[in-house]
Amino acid sequence: MKKFMNSTDTMLRESLSGFAQCHRDIVTLDSELRFVRRAQIKPGKVALISGGGSGHEPLHTGFVGHGMLDAACPGQVFSSPTPNQMVAAAEAVEAGAGVLFIVKNYAGDVMNFSLAAEMCGSNADTLVIDDDVSLEKSMQGRRGVAGTMVVEKMLGAAAEAGADLPALKRLGTSVNGSTRSMGVALTSCTMPAVGKPTFNIADHEMEIGVGIHGEPGRHRRPMMPADKIVALLVDPILKDLQIAKGRDILLHVNGFGGTPLIELHLLNKIATEQLRERGLQVKRWLVGNHTTSLEMAGASLTLTALDDEMVSLWDAPVVTPSLRW
Amino acid sequence: MKKFMNSTDTMLRESLSGFAQCHRDIVTLDSELRFVRRAQIKPGKVALISGGGSGHEPLHTGFVGHGMLDAACPGQVFSSPTPNQMVAAAEAVEAGAGVLFIVKNYAGDVMNFSLAAEMCGSNADTLVIDDDVSLEKSMQGRRGVAGTMVVEKMLGAAAEAGADLPALKRLGTSVNGSTRSMGVALTSCTMPAVGKPTFNIADHEMEIGVGIHGEPGRHRRPMMPADKIVALLVDPILKDLQIAKGRDILLHVNGFGGTPLIELHLLNKIATEQLRERGLQVKRWLVGNHTTSLEMAGASLTLTALDDEMVSLWDAPVVTPSLRW
Repeated sequence: MKKFMNSTDTMLRESLSGFAQCHRDIVTLDSELRFVRRAQIKPGKVALISGGGSGHEPLHTGFVGHGMLDAACPGQVFSSPTPNQMVAAAEAVEAGAGVLFIVKNYAGDVMNFSLAAEMCGSNADTLVIDDDVSLEKSMQGRRGVAGTMVVEKMLGAAAEAGADLPALKRLGTSVNGSTRSMGVALTSCTMPAVGKPTFNIADHEMEIGVGIHGEPGRHRRPMMPADKIVALLVDPILKDLQIAKGRDILLHVNGFGGTPLIELHLLNKIATEQLRERGLQVKRWLVGNHTTSLEMAGASLTLTALDDEMVSLWDAPVVTPSLRW
Repeated sequence: MKKFMNSTDTMLRESLSGFAQCHRDIVTLDSELRFVRRAQIKPGKVALISGGGSGHEPLHTGFVGHGMLDAACPGQVFSSPTPNQMVAAAEAVEAGAGVLFIVKNYAGDVMNFSLAAEMCGSNADTLVIDDDVSLEKSMQGRRGVAGTMVVEKMLGAAAEAGADLPALKRLGTSVNGSTRSMGVALTSCTMPAVGKPTFNIADHEMEIGVGIHGEPGRHRRPMMPADKIVALLVDPILKDLQIAKGRDILLHVNGFGGTPLIELHLLNKIATEQLRERGLQVKRWLVGNHTTSLEMAGASLTLTALDDEMVSLWDAPVVTPSLRW
């Protein structure tokens, strides 16, 4: 394992400190490192808080700021943050209109955020994101992956515009229900505390439907031309999402951390074309390494079936360390 | 080699097309794919044009837009674009005040951009960037690396504000003279057309002073804690740059493509501290994968000794696909 770090014990702490330093105009790091919060709180606005294991940066800390999250709680790499972190974040950013916790659907995260919401009382709720179509059936249900940031962006815009807590929960449920993702890994990631790759994969293989922690997907396939790989992601997504022909969509091509932009842009071109061939028009695009798995090489596609409200929420101004327009 | 591509012949074309698609509000791709240009040209402004081999994205195409470049010419991966591409770009964006070509110091780029400037006539000039301190002496002089985007950002702001061609050339010479970089690679990159790693490096080794095409650096060292790696970059930079104590600086921590943000932010924390210990205050930060070498794991540090003018130019609004504030 070769990583820029001093020790596994100090890695997260040093990284958060370096993050907060270069984005101090937008975010503030809690002195006990329990959360990252917006530098400026907006009174009367519902507070949106997310979080989860670290190693997926910029998700979630990079999406704290005007028009997106109010706070994010980073756990250790691929480990849930604690309810105490979440409650501390809520106390720091609650602005009189309650708190909505946005939670990726993993057992630890769901348990801890639900407990935190209980501890916060009646003016707090949770919204669980489960956009990953790769595992059709599992005990825990579908995983939450790159679609999470789409929900965070749209809810952030709605909260900024004054939506109340029940309205945000309804909207979030609707955006999550209109959003599906699926990914493919070319290499494994290596957790700093483990020191060896999470899974083994041969030089000619790829893992279709991989999770963002290196969890197994649907199947292994030999490496293929990009056209075919994209079809292996687009078709299961569309089978699950069932978008009416002619409906506009948002396409998010997400890199897992080790895949360069030259390849992500190529995937974007191919996915856009394949969607057009299937009668769907991409109306909005986002391409980049946004929901990562440390240094894993690979990418996911996320589709959201848009309505006019979602388009305006997507287009609304956002000023965060990693998403800005 | 595992890459998302259909063939080495079509990779660049498909990638540029996917890039232009998702950023069509900001940039336009030439129909013959010779250059990417700003969607909106500003009359009377000096046109800033850069370019070079592809594989360093977002450099340079991702920096085309308001407050930065007017056009960028992408060559094949790690190969110079041709003078014809550059002249075509100049014809497309020249707005009555001449053209400045911003060129990284590599033999092919310098030759082709100089020829293009000659072909454009008296109202065109070139500015060569050579910020890499790693090779103290070489035939060609120092390489141009991640400091290039610092020059592009500051000149872009000055051009937007109405500076003329001679003033921009002077300013660019000054910013380049105040900027130094040095990098370290943990893995090699693999050029698509070659299919195997550019260099071999053992699991416990790193290449200090590596170039952005995987060129050899100053020396190989065994892997070390991040504190020591940062010192191996900061000290040669400061030895070369000779900044007066108390002088403010810009610190750019750049990833080479395969290094995740969690590690880059950690490097940022350590570099900022080590500079403080040496009597220098970081006043502005930029952290991210901006000048990449395909999927290479590694990072570089770039320091610019700032004056008040440079701070305002850095802070001025910029709207490009990959840099925006």
